[in-house]
Amino acid sequence: MGPLDELAKYFQKMPSVGARLSARLAFFILGQPQNWIDGFVAAMQSVKKNVKYCTQCHDITLRDPCDICRDPARDRGLLCVVADPRDRLAIEKTEYRGLYHILGGLLSPLDNITPEVLRIEELTEKIRKGSYREVFFAINPTVEGEATIMYISDLLKGLGVKLTRIAYGLPTGANIDYADELTVSRAYQGRVEI
Amino acid sequence: MGPLDELAKYFQKMPSVGARLSARLAFFILGQPQNWIDGFVAAMQSVKKNVKYCTQCHDITLRDPCDICRDPARDRGLLCVVADPRDRLAIEKTEYRGLYHILGGLLSPLDNITPEVLRIEELTEKIRKGSYREVFFAINPTVEGEATIMYISDLLKGLGVKLTRIAYGLPTGANIDYADELTVSRAYQGRVEI
Repeated sequence: MGPLDELAKYFQKMPSVGARLSARLAFFILGQPQNWIDGFVAAMQSVKKNVKYCTQCHDITLRDPCDICRDPARDRGLLCVVADPRDRLAIEKTEYRGLYHILGGLLSPLDNITPEVLRIEELTEKIRKGSYREVFFAINPTVEGEATIMYISDLLKGLGVKLTRIAYGLPTGANIDYADELTVSRAYQGRVEI
Repeated sequence: MGPLDELAKYFQKMPSVGARLSARLAFFILGQPQNWIDGFVAAMQSVKKNVKYCTQCHDITLRDPCDICRDPARDRGLLCVVADPRDRLAIEKTEYRGLYHILGGLLSPLDNITPEVLRIEELTEKIRKGSYREVFFAINPTVEGEATIMYISDLLKGLGVKLTRIAYGLPTGANIDYADELTVSRAYQGRVEI
């Protein structure tokens, strides 16, 4: 029926929402009390109004520059490159206390994620103009991740900055005989002296 | 971050939307232009404002009673019982031209869908007060469906109305040797004279 189909079309635009789920979600909205809808609408408007992107690191933030970029206690010679804000959150739980640069994804030409789509030019500009001594890639060890690191490190070579990446190896609590071959190979290649 | 988490909570209330997808959907909303958000909000408000439930058949409708219930060409002695509006749509594509009664689901005590949650009392009242000659159950041949038909037909027995259900058998284009045993058994039990 008209209005439900209209609404379903909007849901179908959302990631991971197909034709069947979008119809169910439209019915769900129909069944919700008006005050729930009002709260949902207000939450969306608040996100649009209050959440911005930091012009320095490109992370989401409530004020620009973000709390990390404006923190004087941070090591401004150290820059961590991550794919998205969630990866930054994970690194923030380690002892890392440098700055960040959020790429906005990983290279994946088949999904139309080319270098121009990511914030790679902004990164090379930042390194060229800034005084960073180390760029640390905290990128998933996947095909896309490796390709992205390779592409960017080619651009940054010769700019006089040390390039590092997060260690690959056995996760805590792992069993060597249960771990996949590639993980064990990489853990071997990355072996350190005791 | 505050507003995004708030918004994600609303998405997480929706069916089939878990913690990960709700966070992705909140980010999706953040990335949409304001006019898309405005259209989405308007589509929700339109559903809430314009879509009603028919007080006679309990189907969704833009006006009450719905077009089917007010249609004088319909056979008012025939009542088709379905679980939800989508099942009614499927039956409407057949030659059936009686009235409908939408239950709002199927009995499933483990999911808290008890007889009180469904529109079963409304159905027995309707049969008691009306002059129906046949009640036709177009209900899925599942455990919940069978239980629902059993429960309701017990209530309707003795009210002088003929009770029928949709035929079980081989679907068009099926291969007997590929069909599951239960389907073939039921197709055998339901065999008809040529």
